[in-house]
Amino acid sequence: MSSKAWSLSEVAQHNTTSSCWVILHNKVYDMTEFLPDHPGGSSIILKYAGRDATAVYDPIHPPDALEKNLPPERHLGDIDTASVASLEAAQNSKRKTKDELRVEAAVARKPRINRMLCLQDIEDVAIKVMSYKTMSYYASGADDELTKRENANAFSRFFFRPRVMRPISKVDTSTTILGFKSTLPIFVSAAGLAKLGHPLGEANITRGAGRTGIIQMVSSASSLSVAQIAESRVSPTQPLFFQLYKSKDNKIAEERVREIERLDYNAIFLTVDAPVGGNRERDVRAPFELEDQEREAEGVDGASQDAPQSEDDLEEKSVNFDGTIGSSLHSMDTDMTFKETIPWLRSVTRLPIVIKGVQCVEDAVLAAEAGVDGILLSNHGGRQLDYSPPPMEVLYRIRKQRPDVFDKLEVYIDGGVKRGTDVLKALCLGATAVGLGRAFLYANSAYGEVGVVQTIRIMQREITLGMRLLGVASVKELVPEMVERVDWQPALARL
Amino acid sequence: MSSKAWSLSEVAQHNTTSSCWVILHNKVYDMTEFLPDHPGGSSIILKYAGRDATAVYDPIHPPDALEKNLPPERHLGDIDTASVASLEAAQNSKRKTKDELRVEAAVARKPRINRMLCLQDIEDVAIKVMSYKTMSYYASGADDELTKRENANAFSRFFFRPRVMRPISKVDTSTTILGFKSTLPIFVSAAGLAKLGHPLGEANITRGAGRTGIIQMVSSASSLSVAQIAESRVSPTQPLFFQLYKSKDNKIAEERVREIERLDYNAIFLTVDAPVGGNRERDVRAPFELEDQEREAEGVDGASQDAPQSEDDLEEKSVNFDGTIGSSLHSMDTDMTFKETIPWLRSVTRLPIVIKGVQCVEDAVLAAEAGVDGILLSNHGGRQLDYSPPPMEVLYRIRKQRPDVFDKLEVYIDGGVKRGTDVLKALCLGATAVGLGRAFLYANSAYGEVGVVQTIRIMQREITLGMRLLGVASVKELVPEMVERVDWQPALARL
Amino acid sequence: MSSKAWSLSEVAQHNTTSSCWVILHNKVYDMTEFLPDHPGGSSIILKYAGRDATAVYDPIHPPDALEKNLPPERHLGDIDTASVASLEAAQNSKRKTKDELRVEAAVARKPRINRMLCLQDIEDVAIKVMSYKTMSYYASGADDELTKRENANAFSRFFFRPRVMRPISKVDTSTTILGFKSTLPIFVSAAGLAKLGHPLGEANITRGAGRTGIIQMVSSASSLSVAQIAESRVSPTQPLFFQLYKSKDNKIAEERVREIERLDYNAIFLTVDAPVGGNRERDVRAPFELEDQEREAEGVDGASQDAPQSEDDLEEKSVNFDGTIGSSLHSMDTDMTFKETIPWLRSVTRLPIVIKGVQCVEDAVLAAEAGVDGILLSNHGGRQLDYSPPPMEVLYRIRKQRPDVFDKLEVYIDGGVKRGTDVLKALCLGATAVGLGRAFLYANSAYGEVGVVQTIRIMQREITLGMRLLGVASVKELVPEMVERVDWQPALARL
Amino acid sequence: MSSKAWSLSEVAQHNTTSSCWVILHNKVYDMTEFLPDHPGGSSIILKYAGRDATAVYDPIHPPDALEKNLPPERHLGDIDTASVASLEAAQNSKRKTKDELRVEAAVARKPRINRMLCLQDIEDVAIKVMSYKTMSYYASGADDELTKRENANAFSRFFFRPRVMRPISKVDTSTTILGFKSTLPIFVSAAGLAKLGHPLGEANITRGAGRTGIIQMVSSASSLSVAQIAESRVSPTQPLFFQLYKSKDNKIAEERVREIERLDYNAIFLTVDAPVGGNRERDVRAPFELEDQEREAEGVDGASQDAPQSEDDLEEKSVNFDGTIGSSLHSMDTDMTFKETIPWLRSVTRLPIVIKGVQCVEDAVLAAEAGVDGILLSNHGGRQLDYSPPPMEVLYRIRKQRPDVFDKLEVYIDGGVKRGTDVLKALCLGATAVGLGRAFLYANSAYGEVGVVQTIRIMQREITLGMRLLGVASVKELVPEMVERVDWQPALARL
Repeated sequence: MSSKAWSLSEVAQHNTTSSCWVILHNKVYDMTEFLPDHPGGSSIILKYAGRDATAVYDPIHPPDALEKNLPPERHLGDIDTASVASLEAAQNSKRKTKDELRVEAAVARKPRINRMLCLQDIEDVAIKVMSYKTMSYYASGADDELTKRENANAFSRFFFRPRVMRPISKVDTSTTILGFKSTLPIFVSAAGLAKLGHPLGEANITRGAGRTGIIQMVSSASSLSVAQIAESRVSPTQPLFFQLYKSKDNKIAEERVREIERLDYNAIFLTVDAPVGGNRERDVRAPFELEDQEREAEGVDGASQDAPQSEDDLEEKSVNFDGTIGSSLHSMDTDMTFKETIPWLRSVTRLPIVIKGVQCVEDAVLAAEAGVDGILLSNHGGRQLDYSPPPMEVLYRIRKQRPDVFDKLEVYIDGGVKRGTDVLKALCLGATAVGLGRAFLYANSAYGEVGVVQTIRIMQREITLGMRLLGVASVKELVPEMVERVDWQPALARL
Repeated sequence: MSSKAWSLSEVAQHNTTSSCWVILHNKVYDMTEFLPDHPGGSSIILKYAGRDATAVYDPIHPPDALEKNLPPERHLGDIDTASVASLEAAQNSKRKTKDELRVEAAVARKPRINRMLCLQDIEDVAIKVMSYKTMSYYASGADDELTKRENANAFSRFFFRPRVMRPISKVDTSTTILGFKSTLPIFVSAAGLAKLGHPLGEANITRGAGRTGIIQMVSSASSLSVAQIAESRVSPTQPLFFQLYKSKDNKIAEERVREIERLDYNAIFLTVDAPVGGNRERDVRAPFELEDQEREAEGVDGASQDAPQSEDDLEEKSVNFDGTIGSSLHSMDTDMTFKETIPWLRSVTRLPIVIKGVQCVEDAVLAAEAGVDGILLSNHGGRQLDYSPPPMEVLYRIRKQRPDVFDKLEVYIDGGVKRGTDVLKALCLGATAVGLGRAFLYANSAYGEVGVVQTIRIMQREITLGMRLLGVASVKELVPEMVERVDWQPALARL
Repeated sequence: MSSKAWSLSEVAQHNTTSSCWVILHNKVYDMTEFLPDHPGGSSIILKYAGRDATAVYDPIHPPDALEKNLPPERHLGDIDTASVASLEAAQNSKRKTKDELRVEAAVARKPRINRMLCLQDIEDVAIKVMSYKTMSYYASGADDELTKRENANAFSRFFFRPRVMRPISKVDTSTTILGFKSTLPIFVSAAGLAKLGHPLGEANITRGAGRTGIIQMVSSASSLSVAQIAESRVSPTQPLFFQLYKSKDNKIAEERVREIERLDYNAIFLTVDAPVGGNRERDVRAPFELEDQEREAEGVDGASQDAPQSEDDLEEKSVNFDGTIGSSLHSMDTDMTFKETIPWLRSVTRLPIVIKGVQCVEDAVLAAEAGVDGILLSNHGGRQLDYSPPPMEVLYRIRKQRPDVFDKLEVYIDGGVKRGTDVLKALCLGATAVGLGRAFLYANSAYGEVGVVQTIRIMQREITLGMRLLGVASVKELVPEMVERVDWQPALARL
Repeated sequence: MSSKAWSLSEVAQHNTTSSCWVILHNKVYDMTEFLPDHPGGSSIILKYAGRDATAVYDPIHPPDALEKNLPPERHLGDIDTASVASLEAAQNSKRKTKDELRVEAAVARKPRINRMLCLQDIEDVAIKVMSYKTMSYYASGADDELTKRENANAFSRFFFRPRVMRPISKVDTSTTILGFKSTLPIFVSAAGLAKLGHPLGEANITRGAGRTGIIQMVSSASSLSVAQIAESRVSPTQPLFFQLYKSKDNKIAEERVREIERLDYNAIFLTVDAPVGGNRERDVRAPFELEDQEREAEGVDGASQDAPQSEDDLEEKSVNFDGTIGSSLHSMDTDMTFKETIPWLRSVTRLPIVIKGVQCVEDAVLAAEAGVDGILLSNHGGRQLDYSPPPMEVLYRIRKQRPDVFDKLEVYIDGGVKRGTDVLKALCLGATAVGLGRAFLYANSAYGEVGVVQTIRIMQREITLGMRLLGVASVKELVPEMVERVDWQPALARL
């Protein structure tokens, strides 16, 4: 690292692919050689070449991202005092965008958390208080977001057959997941970039889960490092699961597993539903839409400031952008197989292994045959392949066609869960537990750690009440005979 | 009871859990020891600790509630004359809320009752002339109110197979329910707190039913006492059924049955679909929403007056609130079984026994085996477990899977009934009679007793006309071959 | 008949049930004894007791209604000259109602008929240019009008299996109905009170049908007499069918048949789907709604002018009103049977007999066994029993369950037909022809006779084109294999 | 050809069916004898009789249309210089219509093409920048456009069964169609009159397809001649297919085939789904609606300027108008058969033969038996027979009922394709390739050639991504087990 203090104008000259410097927290970094390796693509870095990128960098990178990815000799040193002052002044004098003003007003009118009666209430608040970009990243699904919506709608086709005149004065909602105790048959499913919604990021979720006795599956795309998250445990024995994106380099992948084991994570959820990122148009559109909003505010015609339309415009810069940052996605293993990958993973760890992202009965059977400890029926929250089936429907098909799978491993589902009744339906069909992902990002964005706790308490209340009204006193009593897939489509309330 | 006359300021000092006094009808009561036993929770009493609570107490408590629940030594005596005057002055000078003004305007524009052509017309009027809190209590269903809506929608999947060229000049709509004559195959299903909608409360319904010759099942959560309702009969032989919530203390339960028998009630409907209250968010939200409305009227920002958001806010004060008051719900038997509860009930009464709240074929069979006289297929109007199946669908399944049940006991349904055709469909499938609950609350709220009569007359007209157009001259001719469950979803008019 | 000329004030004194006089076309009639026999109920006459009723009487009564129903001694003579002048002046100075002004404006903007491309276009015009009362009478269906809508929606579940590479240069759309030639496989289904929409009434329809070579079934509730309609034939051999409502008095019924035969009607459609009138709320509501509209126009509060609400308001004056006038409905035979009525009818006429209003497979079979010449699957346009099945669905069930019926008699359907493809679907399933009712009332109301012709030409174009694109050259080639009932609900365009 | 130069007033006198002259590009043509042969009907020519028709003629006729159809002696020569100047002046001073102004504003605000993320984005832009008439011609479907919508909706009932843990690092999207290489399993399906949307017309599509390696099926109703389109190839070996409308005169039809062969077209798609034009009301309505718009702009009442309504108005001038121009539709063979037409076509060409427009399983079987090389399941984009089944449903039925068809010929589908997933679903069921028609007209109208390329690139991205997420590396791996037709209707995003 050089000890020279750079001026803004010196840095500004390195704004091309040949020499690309960036300022982060008043330090200068040479990103030139890293450009092709950036998981988020080079164009986003080049947009800030020669400039300060702190504001956009911070919420989406874990603190150790630079150390892990940039060799020390590319850490070029500090900017000079005048530059620091200049950046600060620029920051302070920056006119607020329309979206920032909208958020400020929404935060000022945010209702008290004890008015939050259900998860949708919290989501509604979150949608209002998040920046448009954050909302777009969290909410987006693939293509027309049909699978995202259908994940939730699928539950509406399952009605209960409640039993009456059974003792329900005492109800026990607890269960075990991979042998670990959970106060409720739910867990936090991996969902990344929590810092976009709240400065404390995933730590809020870890602490909320710990305090209420449920288990978090930590996202590979977290905005905190796996170590920071591990340190956020409320007690040393709080279990944590890890969502693994396997590197195509087995050595790197093994090292990742070792790190996880050192940090006392308790299980590995091998992600197989996202070998490449999905087509999340809402996410890609957000910056365009914000640009237009600002231009309109200035009374400028939307199209007139654009460069002329030419062949160059055809380059689809950001469309394949995966949305996850700080992980090893760019070097992910896209040629995994049941036959080779599972034995390899078994050979490098003794942690329980779950395959996250099974989407059909056949692969559930293959997973059972491969001897993993569990499968998570998931389509990545509808963010990957539109018209991937709702996990609840896949679960139903396993129950109908291959019920023996439930004897061989634990089955979980995630996607579209909003109510305690959703959880109970899945458990009736054979699921061990149900994951919630976006719900925790919304809770964290709206109310931080207390929002996470409230989310879990709401689920606890709804699950407890639902069990009582179904006539069951423990999760083991939830059996397939208690649900029926109906042949009509109920009119949903909130579509 | 003390003979001292209290001043408002004296009472005002007893406003904590250690000493909690309340003024009702210018009398002072010490509620301190009763706080934990209040069926509606202690917080609602504490809100009025040290103050006059008459206005909120009256519409939701039967007059004998205090005598039954509070020992005489806690009746502390009257307030002094100056205090009486002061309370009256306060009452008179109270600014009307926006909701009160809205109701006043709606009452002034209320259409004449002879414009009411169908039950929905009356409901539409009621929605307008009821206070927002009353509407919220009456209309609310569990969670997303999906079961509440589907209860009604279920009828739309059943079409008739009308027969032609059959003699229908004379049509007899009468039937018997548990051996008691009814002019129509409908009855009043238990629905509580009628005083919220009309000062004469359930008596309007009792009289309306008596005058038209149908039978009322009296709610345990009535705002009149069971004795007052019994006294409202239009003739001594008017039959009345009683909806029993069984106390977990068999002695208390038996005493309740004795009281009912003394008052010449004619049957017991043992409620099994509400061992605990459902999650009725609309009801819980109403006070919040009214607060906001008032604040907005005053130009005050909604959030700014709220206390800071803290851990304390997490306490879910009222969420589990059942909504019924003045009953023995707080000590309800949540461990009833077919095996023990039914024989016990048989041992203490010779009245006919009906199980209210059966929701699946299996429990219908168990009820038949337990030898009860009838079952009411009901999900408590969608107020208990969302995704409980519509009673019409349960009825259809019994017809398909276990038609022998109809030979062993009488089967009724309630929930979502709006039209004479709904009733006829249920009768075709084997129901003896069909209950209407909310319809009578709305009729009472909109037009009092005359509204109750008009509701029954409308049903009479629709049932008579429907029978003629189906080609049947008596309810016995309504057979399963006359309805068909179709495989498409008709486009409903009023959703 | 008295020769005295009456003054308005003299007549005005006879305004009670004891003595009820009415002025029609400047003549005075004593209706007192006729009151209980009026098919539309006595209250509508009493509303005009002692007054001139010409304006409301004319459009809904055939000219011979008074002669047929009122004995000559009740024809009391003319009003005097001053009274004639006074009535005229009153008529001329009458302020136009809001609805009359709306209609005037709509007529002024009525598009040219050559812009009418489909039946819905014409209906859209008609809705605008008809008075609200006329629209309400024509458009109304029973209860929630669900069957009325489903009649039309039912066609949308049937898709074609079009055949290609078949000779279709020459297409013959003609067929025979009961042996009578028709240029198209459609006919006019009975629909009454055409004078409400156009001063020339049903004659427009008769002439339009005659000019284009299709057959009209004449409604018993026509606003012209059956003789007037017969005289409107464009050629002496133009076939006409008659819709018979059988009197309970066989003598009267036989006389009706004789009259029809004398007028050379060619077949009898015995109506069995309307032994009593349906519950058409839209129709009953119309006068209320118009009253409110006028009051609002005058700035008067809707409720304040109403009489106080009392028990008397409960009388449901008009709810059972059938809507048809001038027929013998009030003495209709409500005890017809296949066993007795059909042989009787055969014994009094040699005309072909069709049963109009069959609504299930069982009755289709009974009709075939009774030896009638045809059945019209109809639910009276959804005006009688809501949740009566769509005729297209009944037709489909006959095809599936009892295809032998098609060998024994001709089968027609009506209700909800809007497109040539609707007709072709019914013909594929075995129907001989398809009736349209409201379509002709709308055409007549919007454009008179020329509208009727345009309606038929549109159907001709659509049927011809549809046959070509299905690969058939004659109606006989339309077979069940060419349609498929699909298991999804298409998104309809105009709902 | 006469050498005389005509004045406008001379030409103006020839404005009747007896003598009908028209000016095109400052030349005068005598159309009198051609009137009955004009494919678009005579009335549209008569509208411009005696006047300049260049502006309406140009975008819908290929340049060789006049030479092919009008004998040289009817080319009457030029207009004189003063007339040329006069026409130019008139053109320049013409007030812009409201629709032209709307288009100008939309073009000015057109977003940059790199914001186009999916085909719907491009369609949305095209709808805005096209004239209302062009939009109406492109977008219109038959009758109520139900089949047009259902073509697209049909895909939504098919969900994937994605496979995980399969090697997908390398994905090959290429295939062959009739032996010709295609980079993607999609092709341009015939869609005519591209010049309406862009002055370069179909050439943009030809060049875009050539640059990206997909194949275009050239429409018989192209606004460029087949020779011009052939010349637009980007390389001499770029394959082109031709959509043949067979003349009823076998000689003319054979000559058409010869011309196509001379121009090196590579296959013949014999069109059988449009022996006559469909009932496209949107298209017919457009001129009426634009007239009204202009009149409103001038404050004139819509109806008042119309001629009086009379019998003459009944002539349905334009309703049967097919919409295609410059082809030999007016003499089309409407009596083709499998038995005669296919052998004849085989006898005159050695090009591969595909039947375009098969709509049921039976005809797919007949086509296979007739020995053609392929069938295109198509209902002409929903423009012909409403309630023709969606091609995706026909494909599914062939797969279920007659899978042997796939062994005998290639099967394609077109209609309603908007997403890469739509393509993949069809391929799973056995389709070789999927055609897009309107998508390319919209792309061409919105962005010209670059829009065509962008459309193909978007499909490439979506198909590639979809294959990866399905777990397949080549199109051959797409098998029926990977899709499932579900029994529920997903809530679509953009309806």
